[in-house]
Amino acid sequence: MSTPRPSQRQPDQLRDIRFTRNYTKHAEGAVLVECGDTKVICTASVVEKVPAFLKGKNQGWLTAEYGMLPRSTGSRMDREAARGKQSGRTQEIQRLIGRSLRAAVDLDKLGERTLHIDCDVIQADGGTRTASITGAFVAVHDAIGTLLARSLLTESPIRDFVAAISVGIYQGVPVLDLDYLEDSGCDTDMNVVMTGRGGLIEVQGTAEGAAYSRAELNALLDLADSGIRQLVALQKQALGM
Amino acid sequence: MSTPRPSQRQPDQLRDIRFTRNYTKHAEGAVLVECGDTKVICTASVVEKVPAFLKGKNQGWLTAEYGMLPRSTGSRMDREAARGKQSGRTQEIQRLIGRSLRAAVDLDKLGERTLHIDCDVIQADGGTRTASITGAFVAVHDAIGTLLARSLLTESPIRDFVAAISVGIYQGVPVLDLDYLEDSGCDTDMNVVMTGRGGLIEVQGTAEGAAYSRAELNALLDLADSGIRQLVALQKQALGM
Amino acid sequence: MSTPRPSQRQPDQLRDIRFTRNYTKHAEGAVLVECGDTKVICTASVVEKVPAFLKGKNQGWLTAEYGMLPRSTGSRMDREAARGKQSGRTQEIQRLIGRSLRAAVDLDKLGERTLHIDCDVIQADGGTRTASITGAFVAVHDAIGTLLARSLLTESPIRDFVAAISVGIYQGVPVLDLDYLEDSGCDTDMNVVMTGRGGLIEVQGTAEGAAYSRAELNALLDLADSGIRQLVALQKQALGM
Amino acid sequence: MSTPRPSQRQPDQLRDIRFTRNYTKHAEGAVLVECGDTKVICTASVVEKVPAFLKGKNQGWLTAEYGMLPRSTGSRMDREAARGKQSGRTQEIQRLIGRSLRAAVDLDKLGERTLHIDCDVIQADGGTRTASITGAFVAVHDAIGTLLARSLLTESPIRDFVAAISVGIYQGVPVLDLDYLEDSGCDTDMNVVMTGRGGLIEVQGTAEGAAYSRAELNALLDLADSGIRQLVALQKQALGM
Amino acid sequence: MSTPRPSQRQPDQLRDIRFTRNYTKHAEGAVLVECGDTKVICTASVVEKVPAFLKGKNQGWLTAEYGMLPRSTGSRMDREAARGKQSGRTQEIQRLIGRSLRAAVDLDKLGERTLHIDCDVIQADGGTRTASITGAFVAVHDAIGTLLARSLLTESPIRDFVAAISVGIYQGVPVLDLDYLEDSGCDTDMNVVMTGRGGLIEVQGTAEGAAYSRAELNALLDLADSGIRQLVALQKQALGM
Amino acid sequence: MSTPRPSQRQPDQLRDIRFTRNYTKHAEGAVLVECGDTKVICTASVVEKVPAFLKGKNQGWLTAEYGMLPRSTGSRMDREAARGKQSGRTQEIQRLIGRSLRAAVDLDKLGERTLHIDCDVIQADGGTRTASITGAFVAVHDAIGTLLARSLLTESPIRDFVAAISVGIYQGVPVLDLDYLEDSGCDTDMNVVMTGRGGLIEVQGTAEGAAYSRAELNALLDLADSGIRQLVALQKQALGM
Repeated sequence: MSTPRPSQRQPDQLRDIRFTRNYTKHAEGAVLVECGDTKVICTASVVEKVPAFLKGKNQGWLTAEYGMLPRSTGSRMDREAARGKQSGRTQEIQRLIGRSLRAAVDLDKLGERTLHIDCDVIQADGGTRTASITGAFVAVHDAIGTLLARSLLTESPIRDFVAAISVGIYQGVPVLDLDYLEDSGCDTDMNVVMTGRGGLIEVQGTAEGAAYSRAELNALLDLADSGIRQLVALQKQALGM
Repeated sequence: MSTPRPSQRQPDQLRDIRFTRNYTKHAEGAVLVECGDTKVICTASVVEKVPAFLKGKNQGWLTAEYGMLPRSTGSRMDREAARGKQSGRTQEIQRLIGRSLRAAVDLDKLGERTLHIDCDVIQADGGTRTASITGAFVAVHDAIGTLLARSLLTESPIRDFVAAISVGIYQGVPVLDLDYLEDSGCDTDMNVVMTGRGGLIEVQGTAEGAAYSRAELNALLDLADSGIRQLVALQKQALGM
Repeated sequence: MSTPRPSQRQPDQLRDIRFTRNYTKHAEGAVLVECGDTKVICTASVVEKVPAFLKGKNQGWLTAEYGMLPRSTGSRMDREAARGKQSGRTQEIQRLIGRSLRAAVDLDKLGERTLHIDCDVIQADGGTRTASITGAFVAVHDAIGTLLARSLLTESPIRDFVAAISVGIYQGVPVLDLDYLEDSGCDTDMNVVMTGRGGLIEVQGTAEGAAYSRAELNALLDLADSGIRQLVALQKQALGM
Repeated sequence: MSTPRPSQRQPDQLRDIRFTRNYTKHAEGAVLVECGDTKVICTASVVEKVPAFLKGKNQGWLTAEYGMLPRSTGSRMDREAARGKQSGRTQEIQRLIGRSLRAAVDLDKLGERTLHIDCDVIQADGGTRTASITGAFVAVHDAIGTLLARSLLTESPIRDFVAAISVGIYQGVPVLDLDYLEDSGCDTDMNVVMTGRGGLIEVQGTAEGAAYSRAELNALLDLADSGIRQLVALQKQALGM
Repeated sequence: MSTPRPSQRQPDQLRDIRFTRNYTKHAEGAVLVECGDTKVICTASVVEKVPAFLKGKNQGWLTAEYGMLPRSTGSRMDREAARGKQSGRTQEIQRLIGRSLRAAVDLDKLGERTLHIDCDVIQADGGTRTASITGAFVAVHDAIGTLLARSLLTESPIRDFVAAISVGIYQGVPVLDLDYLEDSGCDTDMNVVMTGRGGLIEVQGTAEGAAYSRAELNALLDLADSGIRQLVALQKQALGM
Repeated sequence: MSTPRPSQRQPDQLRDIRFTRNYTKHAEGAVLVECGDTKVICTASVVEKVPAFLKGKNQGWLTAEYGMLPRSTGSRMDREAARGKQSGRTQEIQRLIGRSLRAAVDLDKLGERTLHIDCDVIQADGGTRTASITGAFVAVHDAIGTLLARSLLTESPIRDFVAAISVGIYQGVPVLDLDYLEDSGCDTDMNVVMTGRGGLIEVQGTAEGAAYSRAELNALLDLADSGIRQLVALQKQALGM
């Protein structure tokens, strides 16, 4: 089967995915996720308090922040801490990561504590937001494991696996897991977040140029579905399950 | 047909929609859009310059900003100008509005000028972002009309109509055009932006609680499709076309 | 009597003034005030707490914020929320609005709650700060009415009516209620805030070019006095009193 | 004549006023002004460029900034540079200082340069804004003198002297030049800026509690007029004129 | 002995040093320190609370802030309050001042209160940070004296005197107490903070151009040691000890 | 020889040091430096322009930024980009890194371009600022190598090696290369930056509790000197020299 992809991958082929658990030593969960050349450090920190709006409600919270090292990209970007604010893109991504992972965790069973996710991109080659979600799930799983091991929880609040992937239409062909070159050149770009059982958590599809049809949308969702099944299998393998 | 909706509307029934053109006098396009009790002032301002990254490229730009009056909502929100920054939600919405309307306009035919869209919510009852897109299209159309009338353009750069609507699953039933009560209580919430010819521009579906299935996604997209066809018809009517 | 005014109004003639109560549905008081082409949404929100410096003192507070929609003016202004700060002019105006309306309300009788005034200009044609004060008084009156109706107050804390108007010397002639054209071209500009009983609350007179004399000051104050009497009569009429 | 003033001054008596020219060595004009215990360093700096909106118009500009040392007051205030923004009060004052001094200078004769005024309060005891204006005029005069001495100007652009004073109604009696104790306790507070020839530049009168009458306004303006005549005489004496 | 110094001072000669106590009236300690043409107002304010991290620990705190008046320098600098943030240099200096003076005070004996130091440069000619430390020590001594006089303390928490000086290598010669001209032209610049008993508190030596040797470092420290002994003697004299 | 160190290291023993070149793929120089458990990604980015103050002067610039991932530390820190500003500590460190590396590079030979250093701590265990300098030197060397390889430079502007280390007095004993436990418990803490030829670039010694003597200073500098010689040898080895 011929492929138009600069990466020579088949249309339905993921990049090489690798999870390195315990990548750093302080966080309760700390995972380096690599999707091809995209590399993100995902940590899950347990903070023993909840935001004001949840105080006394006997439930937990999960929130996420996202950042890119200034030279994670081809040309150096301004450091957001130096500019004094996070871009709209950054805020959009960290809201997506938080929402996606809250779907994986039963906050009522977490106790009055917060899981604080940090996803920091150290090298970018497309798909940093979906890699962040996929890697952060493993970090969350490890952080929950730490809480169980310390008897701070007696039952896991994890409801299901969660993973994410990008899909898009590149030179007329629906393809899975866009790298930077493909992402820059594609017409339609979609990020999909799904559970281990195959439920949809988030679908975000954007026409960059021409509008797309329902048929194209369906082809993309089929691709995403197959990719996420593979990602969940890799997450399980990384977790020794 | 029975309906679970607090508004007593049928599942596939839009709220009353109204466009008031020339709502204010200074902007090249100025529209008050009302979707039920949601009211947004949408202005399109022509600014005769482009951002730095487009200078000398002989093309135009379109960008959007969004805000809510502090008491457009049930309880008073902080004023973003006083807090000194726009929330992540605000930035996410204004990026969506800008992206959606850029799909409607051929920027190569706009000349080196910027259409600056402002969507300011004066009363909120759910669906402010989709109402903003739908109303802003009419304001853009009027602003282009002004440019044509002043012979600053000889050909309209508008490629197609654009409108947006929210859909969701409320008490198990897919429903169209959520108001605030429905939005707060629904499981899955999706915003859809489409062209007049029925192409998809943007699909953003989020599971608030349980994940959703492909079948549910399809039912929601069908509803959105029918709603947007009605909205485009109303836009045309408002524009006297 | 001949007049030098671009608007053709007599020197002592107000623009058409209109108050639309309950202009939006959420706020305890919500008034659209129109002074000619100047249109301001004034809301008074009841917030059941007081600032830190008043806690436990058994008295209330009233504070005000002011903003202009970016395209309320002839050319688009930057959005203050996007720039990340309010201009000096904005702060000066909102301090004036707050001070003026605090003169209208006996804060000792308000209970430990705050009246939060928001004045948002949707169309500007001169005199936005005085229109804001005049309109906000009606909104405050309605908000107090709401508190009385809900038996949260048993006695009205309103001490007197308050209204405001601008006056200036245009082409050598003292004139009342400057519109934008007159405001831009006038030598001396004065904003006057008075009570229903004719007491002065605030006088702010600025020489834009040449200094002005005591005689001119007196002529301007006479004009303001007559204008404010008319405004208070219109406020009463709008309130059905 | 008996006086209600805590300072034992007569109602129409100024505090001791002192101008120290060349108080610091770098600025083109540098004056320490002392009004009783209120002490302000006023510098006028010549900057050989104008703001963007004046470029190429062959005229100059004058702008002012104001600040208080954190412990210039009875209890320590936050440092505005550390808080990251200037208060509304600060901005209001610096706008007033700038406006007042622009009335003193013919900007068309200044050349394309900016006079940048800085008024920094090192000890506060009421009346810091009026002392700033009165002292800054002397600093501006010295800065113009420097420009003339360096042959950068051949003719002085100074049109007239400018000075400012506060007046108020303290325990029912109109008094001149309020110190902190009087200012805190007075009902009506007015700041008046006038020229050497007796023209009004700015009148800002605020009722702190009860409204005030036209008769009271007139009594206060009479007091201000007499005070400013004395201040201008002292400015001339300090300048050796 | 010949000297290369623009100031004609001998290599080991301090500038004229003067302390004016009670320079302003509100602060518990208020000192104007003059080192040649460098003039800094140093105030020590007693604030009867401690930062959150020290609450309930029965000890005090000392913190410092630093600023320069915009025209304390040869050309006008931006006002940090107007720019909305303190520069890195400012923060570095105020951290140094705080650290240096905390070494002088036994915080366990201070009680739960904060000494808040403010060092504001009104005229700069090199060495503002070291002058600030030397002057602030006298202000702290006075503030402690105030607390003892008011019986808020029964024993002085001051452990030792603290003073600071700059040294550098100018045209190959180690010199003491650099003024602005020397500072701009020197190769190596070192700030030294020492106690009255001769202990080192802080050494900060920076090669501006070429690296420096241990021998040069030692020569500079010898000079600093002699300078600081003189400064401590002058502090004692100013304090009447 | 007995040692008081929690790490069981000898007083003059460095931690294990490792440099991983080309750690990420985009930057012209990209080094992961590990000093025991402290891990910092140091990138050197070539940006083909210079700051405004150097334009047209035919010389280059080098500047540095520093950051810590929120969970690089034992408990999670706030993300500086989210807080909207860099701490004083961060700014102090990045100024030190920039100054230190500018000493290593002849900016006159760099051409009109900027080397932008980013040091991002991914795991912290004491000594992050000195590790940053030592690692960033290797990244700068690689970036210069890239410029030479691309014939953008014909001669290396590197003047000498630069490395940095911390030393301190721990339980009375001078020790080399403090880890977090030692750093928290030590009395005197000094950071030293030196060149390959043994010249001093920067000495920053701070008494945390008691002051320190010249003899102690000398012992610390001896330790630092020996440590930096080893670090330079390791840098050379990593660079294959």
